[in-house]
Amino acid sequence: VTRVLVTGASGFVGFPVVTELARRGHDVHAITSRTAPAGGGGVTWHQGDLAARGGVDALVAGIAPEALVHAAWYVEPGRFWTAVENVDWVGRSLSLLRAFVAAGGRRAVLLGTCAEYDWTEPQEFLAELGSPLGPATLYGSAKDGLRRVAGAYAAQAEIELAWGRLFFLYGPREQPARLVPAVVRSLLRGESVATTSGAQVRDLLHVDDVAGAIVALLESAAVGPVNIASGSGVTLREVIGEVAALVGRPELVRFGELPERPGEPERLVADVTRLRAEVGYHPRLTLAEGLAATVEWWRSA
Amino acid sequence: VTRVLVTGASGFVGFPVVTELARRGHDVHAITSRTAPAGGGGVTWHQGDLAARGGVDALVAGIAPEALVHAAWYVEPGRFWTAVENVDWVGRSLSLLRAFVAAGGRRAVLLGTCAEYDWTEPQEFLAELGSPLGPATLYGSAKDGLRRVAGAYAAQAEIELAWGRLFFLYGPREQPARLVPAVVRSLLRGESVATTSGAQVRDLLHVDDVAGAIVALLESAAVGPVNIASGSGVTLREVIGEVAALVGRPELVRFGELPERPGEPERLVADVTRLRAEVGYHPRLTLAEGLAATVEWWRSA
Repeated sequence: VTRVLVTGASGFVGFPVVTELARRGHDVHAITSRTAPAGGGGVTWHQGDLAARGGVDALVAGIAPEALVHAAWYVEPGRFWTAVENVDWVGRSLSLLRAFVAAGGRRAVLLGTCAEYDWTEPQEFLAELGSPLGPATLYGSAKDGLRRVAGAYAAQAEIELAWGRLFFLYGPREQPARLVPAVVRSLLRGESVATTSGAQVRDLLHVDDVAGAIVALLESAAVGPVNIASGSGVTLREVIGEVAALVGRPELVRFGELPERPGEPERLVADVTRLRAEVGYHPRLTLAEGLAATVEWWRSA
Repeated sequence: VTRVLVTGASGFVGFPVVTELARRGHDVHAITSRTAPAGGGGVTWHQGDLAARGGVDALVAGIAPEALVHAAWYVEPGRFWTAVENVDWVGRSLSLLRAFVAAGGRRAVLLGTCAEYDWTEPQEFLAELGSPLGPATLYGSAKDGLRRVAGAYAAQAEIELAWGRLFFLYGPREQPARLVPAVVRSLLRGESVATTSGAQVRDLLHVDDVAGAIVALLESAAVGPVNIASGSGVTLREVIGEVAALVGRPELVRFGELPERPGEPERLVADVTRLRAEVGYHPRLTLAEGLAATVEWWRSA
């Protein structure tokens, strides 16, 4: 049992991380910028805003966590790729890490993105050690820069730092403007859905498996970047088709009605050798199971 | 004439930058964390601490500078390579840049370091575009990470950002613990100086030429990294020998009495093609002139 601090704890990724950590018996301290829920079940909730002046330094000092999962970031759908808030989150994340080390912290998992890789170089699988980096967005650059500074700082401070590099996720509680929820909700309302051809191949993982992998990464000895992904490619056409079949309204999807986005890569699929061999994590849900659970969640939401 | 904000304005680099900007007729707003001197000669001094909560945001908003030279950083001799303060200066620098853009700023010069380059790959000249990067120190990593995030942010915000990559500097007002002042002061006191063999080849530039190059870079249209250096290599043995000759106490220098530092690169010399061709800067002082002026300054200090 480890005393673990989780930031962004009421978020799409943070909340299932909190749940999974508690299930595995850790002493979880969950920080949310929203109203803190009542505690219980191994979780102590704290209201704290990393964006506030002074951040959460005093809170971190009081908790004195041994481990950290930093899931807070700016995640507004559509806007987050280019938002200037990405710049602020670099400094906030470094301040958090400083406070964590000052409080005696020993092992941290920070979250990165597949947008750190160079998407202009087509690769069958994107690997942590072999594939070129080269973010094309402010979001990717902010995460890339943070990783470099945080990694050097962790080495200097002699703490372990792992970098969970997330690919594409979906699942319950995802922001409604994002792809899967937007399609599910339109179809549930009986509205037609216009999409591109959907030929892009992506690597999707259910958020509960993302959380499981993050917790497994925290519990492992792996350091540096580790892709958090399924390792399998699927076309968005297949994903949307599956969702439409689950809702029972396949006739409402109009593939090819929207133009392709210029510059969007054809294929983004993770090499998950590190996740399998060093972290030992294997997803619990297949894509079909995960999408079925997600559609059910939106049906009853 | 441009309204230019300078941070770290009472520092070793910042102060001659302020002087040179004023000499060239700019409307200079100089921020120092120390007591602000009286203004005059085109310079308005402001007391402000980037390390304070809220940094200098209100100050920057009030000044509304068109241009920025950000010379503030943690520079404690000996300690700065590994100091955790490097981590804090990443966030502070990004906050400053955010405030500068919010205030309507258009062109910024930030300062980097030759320690951003990979020193384990021997190169005759280190070039901004061709030489591999790979900082081995927290100082180098912090500057490298800052450059990546700041560069992406500047592109997004549509401002111009140039990155003056400093090599080795010397001159008046340098911190006494650093190489040239330490040697000069010991010799002036008649004390012997124990050194390594001094075989390392370095690229030295007088701080007044560093400041001249930074101002020229600000006035140019160049963006991205630009080496600020002489482009010529000199052994530390030659530098120390020259200093000893200028002081008139060559017999006090004991070369080879200290062991070589493991892992220290043999040669670090800048490719100055960008500085010459795109910025159009040529140093005013030769190394012999610069060292002579520096010894004179310490003599009368």
